[in-house]
Amino acid sequence: MASLQDIGMSAAINILSAIAFLVAFAILRLQPINDRVYFPKWYLKGIRGSPTHSQAFVRQLVNLDCKTYITFLNWMPAALKMPEPELIEHAGLDSTAFIRIYLLGLKIFMPITVLALVVLLPVNWTGKSLETMQNVTFSDIDKLSISNVPYGSDRFWAHLVMAYVFTFWTFYVLYNEYKIMANMRLHFLASEHRRPDQFTVLVRNVPPDTDESVSEHVEHFFCVNHPDTYITHQIVYNANNLASIVEKKKSLQNWLTYYENKYERFPSKKPTTKTGFFGLWGTKVDAIDYYAIEKAKLSQEEEAEREKLISDPNTIVPAAFVSFKSRWGAAVCAQTQQSRNPTIWLTEWAPEPCDVYWANLAIPYFELTIRRLLMAVALFFLTFFFMIPITFVQSLANIEGIERVFPFLKKLIEKPTVRSLIQGFLPGIALKIFLILLPSILMLMSKIEGFTSLSSLEKRSAGKYHLFVLVNVFLGSIITGTALQQLKLFLQQAPTEFPKTVGVSIPMKATFFITYIMVDGWAGIAAEILRLVPLIIFHLKNTFLVKTEKDREQAMDPGCLSFAISEPRIQLYFLLGFVYCVVTPILLPFIIIFFAFAYMVFRHQIINVYNQKYESGATFWPDVHRRLIIGMIISQLLLMGLLSTKQADSSTPLLIVLPILTIWFHIFCKGRFESAFMKFPLEDAMVKDTLERATEPNLNMKAYLQNAYVHPVFKGGDLDGHLIIDDLENNPLVPTKRNSNRSSNFGSGRSSDVEL
Amino acid sequence: MASLQDIGMSAAINILSAIAFLVAFAILRLQPINDRVYFPKWYLKGIRGSPTHSQAFVRQLVNLDCKTYITFLNWMPAALKMPEPELIEHAGLDSTAFIRIYLLGLKIFMPITVLALVVLLPVNWTGKSLETMQNVTFSDIDKLSISNVPYGSDRFWAHLVMAYVFTFWTFYVLYNEYKIMANMRLHFLASEHRRPDQFTVLVRNVPPDTDESVSEHVEHFFCVNHPDTYITHQIVYNANNLASIVEKKKSLQNWLTYYENKYERFPSKKPTTKTGFFGLWGTKVDAIDYYAIEKAKLSQEEEAEREKLISDPNTIVPAAFVSFKSRWGAAVCAQTQQSRNPTIWLTEWAPEPCDVYWANLAIPYFELTIRRLLMAVALFFLTFFFMIPITFVQSLANIEGIERVFPFLKKLIEKPTVRSLIQGFLPGIALKIFLILLPSILMLMSKIEGFTSLSSLEKRSAGKYHLFVLVNVFLGSIITGTALQQLKLFLQQAPTEFPKTVGVSIPMKATFFITYIMVDGWAGIAAEILRLVPLIIFHLKNTFLVKTEKDREQAMDPGCLSFAISEPRIQLYFLLGFVYCVVTPILLPFIIIFFAFAYMVFRHQIINVYNQKYESGATFWPDVHRRLIIGMIISQLLLMGLLSTKQADSSTPLLIVLPILTIWFHIFCKGRFESAFMKFPLEDAMVKDTLERATEPNLNMKAYLQNAYVHPVFKGGDLDGHLIIDDLENNPLVPTKRNSNRSSNFGSGRSSDVEL
Repeated sequence: MASLQDIGMSAAINILSAIAFLVAFAILRLQPINDRVYFPKWYLKGIRGSPTHSQAFVRQLVNLDCKTYITFLNWMPAALKMPEPELIEHAGLDSTAFIRIYLLGLKIFMPITVLALVVLLPVNWTGKSLETMQNVTFSDIDKLSISNVPYGSDRFWAHLVMAYVFTFWTFYVLYNEYKIMANMRLHFLASEHRRPDQFTVLVRNVPPDTDESVSEHVEHFFCVNHPDTYITHQIVYNANNLASIVEKKKSLQNWLTYYENKYERFPSKKPTTKTGFFGLWGTKVDAIDYYAIEKAKLSQEEEAEREKLISDPNTIVPAAFVSFKSRWGAAVCAQTQQSRNPTIWLTEWAPEPCDVYWANLAIPYFELTIRRLLMAVALFFLTFFFMIPITFVQSLANIEGIERVFPFLKKLIEKPTVRSLIQGFLPGIALKIFLILLPSILMLMSKIEGFTSLSSLEKRSAGKYHLFVLVNVFLGSIITGTALQQLKLFLQQAPTEFPKTVGVSIPMKATFFITYIMVDGWAGIAAEILRLVPLIIFHLKNTFLVKTEKDREQAMDPGCLSFAISEPRIQLYFLLGFVYCVVTPILLPFIIIFFAFAYMVFRHQIINVYNQKYESGATFWPDVHRRLIIGMIISQLLLMGLLSTKQADSSTPLLIVLPILTIWFHIFCKGRFESAFMKFPLEDAMVKDTLERATEPNLNMKAYLQNAYVHPVFKGGDLDGHLIIDDLENNPLVPTKRNSNRSSNFGSGRSSDVEL
Repeated sequence: MASLQDIGMSAAINILSAIAFLVAFAILRLQPINDRVYFPKWYLKGIRGSPTHSQAFVRQLVNLDCKTYITFLNWMPAALKMPEPELIEHAGLDSTAFIRIYLLGLKIFMPITVLALVVLLPVNWTGKSLETMQNVTFSDIDKLSISNVPYGSDRFWAHLVMAYVFTFWTFYVLYNEYKIMANMRLHFLASEHRRPDQFTVLVRNVPPDTDESVSEHVEHFFCVNHPDTYITHQIVYNANNLASIVEKKKSLQNWLTYYENKYERFPSKKPTTKTGFFGLWGTKVDAIDYYAIEKAKLSQEEEAEREKLISDPNTIVPAAFVSFKSRWGAAVCAQTQQSRNPTIWLTEWAPEPCDVYWANLAIPYFELTIRRLLMAVALFFLTFFFMIPITFVQSLANIEGIERVFPFLKKLIEKPTVRSLIQGFLPGIALKIFLILLPSILMLMSKIEGFTSLSSLEKRSAGKYHLFVLVNVFLGSIITGTALQQLKLFLQQAPTEFPKTVGVSIPMKATFFITYIMVDGWAGIAAEILRLVPLIIFHLKNTFLVKTEKDREQAMDPGCLSFAISEPRIQLYFLLGFVYCVVTPILLPFIIIFFAFAYMVFRHQIINVYNQKYESGATFWPDVHRRLIIGMIISQLLLMGLLSTKQADSSTPLLIVLPILTIWFHIFCKGRFESAFMKFPLEDAMVKDTLERATEPNLNMKAYLQNAYVHPVFKGGDLDGHLIIDDLENNPLVPTKRNSNRSSNFGSGRSSDVEL
């Protein structure tokens, strides 16, 4: 067990590395050449101009103004300065809600920390049970924890009362936060500008009809069942093939640009490439010619695919975006059941156009349930048995294995230093690779499950990741053992024993978690702000690919908040806070620092850097709330287990009340607030409709909605400029005919009926 | 353990008693004097006339026609003859769906029984493991069970395969049945005549408004948010007080009639009564005068209460029945969220007018969640700790206790025969009373939970009763011990151990359950058809209270199917079937006989006797389905536990698949069918609306709906004849004014605005 000194040492290291990151950030961000890495958001908004135009060449790259270096930490107050309404306007509600999670952490744990330090620390410290015991090694941290209270002591009443106080305080904060978020969301929806998704419903599982095309069928169905509000619909094409061709073409275009640039800079040497795998082997050819030809081939392919999509009725999937005259009509359609068979004509709010996950729109109901079953089983195995394949890979990837596969490395490997490096490094690398890949694996699983919007995919992935973190990081660190061993333990012990087993180990792991918080929470967050990877990639791209200002725009990778990865990690800090607030209160200040620091950093990032791909209006908040409740219940059960091993059995009946109350609180909040995140109340829809009718009586809704939900590959603009949307938006009332303007078929599902 | 002989003996006794009940029934039902007890349904339908009018006096009482006695069992084919569509027409969908549960039992278990007897019985019989063991007592039944298969034998493969076959067969039958029920319900709803509840939505938690009355507030809200479909609404009065006065008055009227009749028959002696508790003590007074005066007093009170209801705005509860022009409008309103605060303006399908539970319409959201929490805790204690108060009562109600309280009984009690009778009888009686009261207790709990319709109250009570039966009858019989002891066992054993503990005991309890099926299932059902209690009560009422033909009508108590009690009991038979089909297949024929016999009996009863109080359209089917799934999962877990103790551990991974598949099947069915029981699809609503508009274009909907939802005490007719409904229905277009027709204020919530 670590002493206070060890902790101090570790704290010093982590604080120093955090400061190093911050200083590096402060210096790098002041260099004009990095401006697009550290302030991409402003470029995307068109507010910030490129500094490289107006100044001398050196000044374009390096900031020579010494004054700015002195105030290098001024980003911190700047990040906090922007008021929340402006922040929502600037960065979106999703981002604002996300950083409010950190703020929530501060709100919950600040008073708890004060109270715990004032009340519980002295109670523990004066318990003096560890000192009287013999043959027990203990550290200073342990003297401050519940371990120091003698068995069966009356002092446990303090912990008991505090557990109640903390729980009720958390209820209070959580309730208020949920309320604020619900109001924020409703206000956000109400004050939004007109957006197509407000009027549109996604209809899935359109039943097949022998007499009618999908488009006709949809039109007839909604004309009959929503006669007063139905206005138009857009059919969905299965353009997954085309999308992959476009993607491929884009990468070829990149290579082409790269070689053209190269040739431009060194006209003496014509660049060459090899035709094989990644240009590593194969015949040597002229690179520019090769890529130009390949690109032309793909363009032809693309053309053929586009032609096929238009002419082949089989490429139309049984799903459609149905638009209504009013928000009220859309709200009604999204919330009601259309057909007597509840697995067809499924309606739901259409996600934002850029939030749609197009590949999943056409999965039939039965297949969907099978997919979910398989993924649930897969998630179970992934969580509990992931160590098995990794151990297997580790057993292969030892020195002998490498020598067998790459005999030419033998000499190098057998040097003692290299050898020990490999032996120390290799076993870890398989696990590390797995952990890096994990979010992608989970996202893939969510995609297989068949969700239709990016936001729901992220939410599902976050749920899976949360389970993984809970089992493998939290429980795994406490019980020390693989998840599989824990599972066995859990199955072989009585349900009352498991909390005891885990509870007993909790005080002993406090120092470990303190270190964890400092490494992952403090230094990790400081590394986040430095954006090392995007920085390097930007400069690589800038050097090799960028020709025009527009290219430079594309080379910027503002990135975005990854809810699926970050949120479950924050939940771990909440969980640690809940678990240790009664047991080892000294851990709490570390968490407070994490929350405060992370809040500041991420507020800076969403203001200056991140550019969210979609805006879901904080629909993830019920998930955040639910997981916080799960954390609370876990902490209560563990406290119960811990106290019952401390011969304070009489506390059990008092403590069992807490989880019951917590579950009730969850149900209460769910009923009170959750629907604000799921449904759109008719009252609000009506208000907004009425207002709009009054202010814009002559609005042509049909033209506005006609092409809102077009598969992104038809929107073009990226490569060849199939600018359907713009065409039609400018001339919404010009009648379009198939032969005169092919692309209009994609715009309007209704006119494409002719072909079928 | 009972031998085959014992079982045969028990079977003989039960079959004989069942036959005795049937013969008694056959004779009694042929007597004209009992006609109203055994065929009340036909009287209520007005199809069957009283036989007492036309014939000689003796013939009015006793059937002397010998021919009819010979064919005394002909009710059985008669019960089966009525085709199902006619049955739905005659007895309603609820009853028809209810007896289909028995039919479902036959469908599931007939093939399973055949297969189990053909395959598993020989496998078990030839296992011969019991005979080779020493020091083990076993019966012939055990030789036919899985106990007879040697440890670790390959024969368990047969059981494993059969478990899969049975599960898939059950899936198939359950899926089909759910499909049939969903279609039946939708067809029932579609083919129904126009009913007010099709157009009406119950709105609860109307928020208070300082400027407007509830009625105005409701009208404005729905005029704004459902402008095209809203037509009218009815406010709800808190008439619980008035209802209890009316109830009291009815009972006084009964006593008055009783004494009047008495006086009429023996004019020589004026009947007297005592004014005290139940006429047991107090001053002696003339009975007729006394009750007449009391009744007059109550009538005054009633009048005052009615006056108060009309004039006092506080008696209006924040709930209303809002009616729409079309079914489509009502379907939309019922399925959507109205306000941004999801706890106010709650809308749901209005229950049928006679299905409304009026007392619960005004509970605010917060109180509702608190009530549910308390009742959940109460249910837990009731289920697991109910033996504690009963044991306490038992300890008080011993011979010494009685002697202390009633010293004058001392001599009587101390006679040996009386003493042993009391000692044998008293401890059981507290438990028996509790079990008789249990359904009422559970119903009371459901009422406290705040459900607003009788059908949902019954559904909730059934759920509670199911838990009780599961824990205290099923598990209680197997582990032998109180539920509290089981709970301890469950908490102290590993999750994998509990199924083993229970599983091991299962084969041993087969004979017990066979006897249970015969006593409760066979003889109990036969007793049901005899209707002994209603028979006696009818004759008592007929003798003392009946004066006119209308009185006789009221003396009939057709009773009704009590879903809350019967359904959980049927579930026990399903559970036994699922559990024993692999373990002791010989139990299955007993269950088959129960299902077949019960099906016949209840089909007869719903045709001839029962008169359901409300019609919910089989909304309980998802509950039935869910509980069947729970039964299947329990049986699969227990089989897993049992086999793992038989050293057939390798079966566990194969058997764990079954519960996972079952859960998936449940989720699949839920998604596929459940909404047919919850929501009303817009497509169907539209079809029905269109049809109606075409056939009855001039229908005055407003008049039709205006008074549909009036509290039953205002409907009157029972005592004083406040026949509002009939008045208005005959003249729907006559304008009613407050002073000219007071009662119309209750009919129309809108006109009552004036008073507030």
